[in-house]
Amino acid sequence: MHYPEPISKLIESFMKLPGIGPKTAARLAFFVLKMNEDTVLNFAKALIDAKRNLSYCSVCGHITDIDPCHICQDKQRDLSMICVVQDTKDVIAMEKMRDYNGLYHVLHGAISPMDGIGPEDINVPTLLKRLQDTRVEELILATNPTIEGEATAMYISRLVKPSGIMTTRIAHGLPVGGDLEYADEVTLSKALEGRREL
Amino acid sequence: MHYPEPISKLIESFMKLPGIGPKTAARLAFFVLKMNEDTVLNFAKALIDAKRNLSYCSVCGHITDIDPCHICQDKQRDLSMICVVQDTKDVIAMEKMRDYNGLYHVLHGAISPMDGIGPEDINVPTLLKRLQDTRVEELILATNPTIEGEATAMYISRLVKPSGIMTTRIAHGLPVGGDLEYADEVTLSKALEGRREL
Repeated sequence: MHYPEPISKLIESFMKLPGIGPKTAARLAFFVLKMNEDTVLNFAKALIDAKRNLSYCSVCGHITDIDPCHICQDKQRDLSMICVVQDTKDVIAMEKMRDYNGLYHVLHGAISPMDGIGPEDINVPTLLKRLQDTRVEELILATNPTIEGEATAMYISRLVKPSGIMTTRIAHGLPVGGDLEYADEVTLSKALEGRREL
Repeated sequence: MHYPEPISKLIESFMKLPGIGPKTAARLAFFVLKMNEDTVLNFAKALIDAKRNLSYCSVCGHITDIDPCHICQDKQRDLSMICVVQDTKDVIAMEKMRDYNGLYHVLHGAISPMDGIGPEDINVPTLLKRLQDTRVEELILATNPTIEGEATAMYISRLVKPSGIMTTRIAHGLPVGGDLEYADEVTLSKALEGRREL
């Protein structure tokens, strides 16, 4: 015998989460046993609610409990700008900044020929449809500064250019609070390339 | 706006677990959204089941879904030995070894005057009651090799000695696969003290 069945099932469930191995899963499961019952019930409910009540916005692809999402419905937003990101978490990161008031478009991935992911596999077709709205003036490409992210940005930019909509790419450079000494060469080279007059 | 409510509730629930901060909690919550619905439902059920269907064995204090637990009910077990451990997880560690066939007694803690924990606050009184069973011949004290664990072992040993039951303490020494060079002085001194003729 190892664990009683209810706890081994809970351990198995925890092990399905990313970055949680058997030891951490056991630690978490035993912690759950010591939590009060209401907290555990709320946890279980939160799991089911999150899975059942959330979907992706049919307009921008952001995660939402209403459709279209809060951002797409917001009348205060600047409809002339769309910021293209790879992931819903990127929208949340952008929103935390509170500096951007335009709309978003979540690609749910990036073009990656190595993994067999082409433009049709991510949320590109819906983006092109949105761009037919004449109010859109600028498309900010905020995909990740990785090979796939750059390739995706380049691809979308070339696709959109003929339509006359301005496409911009977020800046690469040293992160604020970073240290020149520890910056990698590519970042440093990008930072130098993107230098601006003060 | 930050997260839609269902997901922020799930993040809050994950954050109540030990070692999980806001970033990990968000990562786990977003992972849950990508899991298939059955897996999530099973996870939620496992949480509730573990909390509701598990209790502590009235005999040995081990965690169990039946009372007395599987180990206490097992007719194949050697009733003459009781191994005293601090935690239910220690029972599981001992069982994994498959070398021990006696019974257990889980203290759920150790004596620690600094934290105001005395012998009555842990599972000592029930242990003494079990020792009145004349079949018990040996009490193996397998509390942790920490100050509190040692103190608890010493305390129980002195209490039990007059009754004529043999009390033993698990060996201290170098862990198998360990390195003499990196062993701390106390462990090394214990290893030397406990040396045996080959």
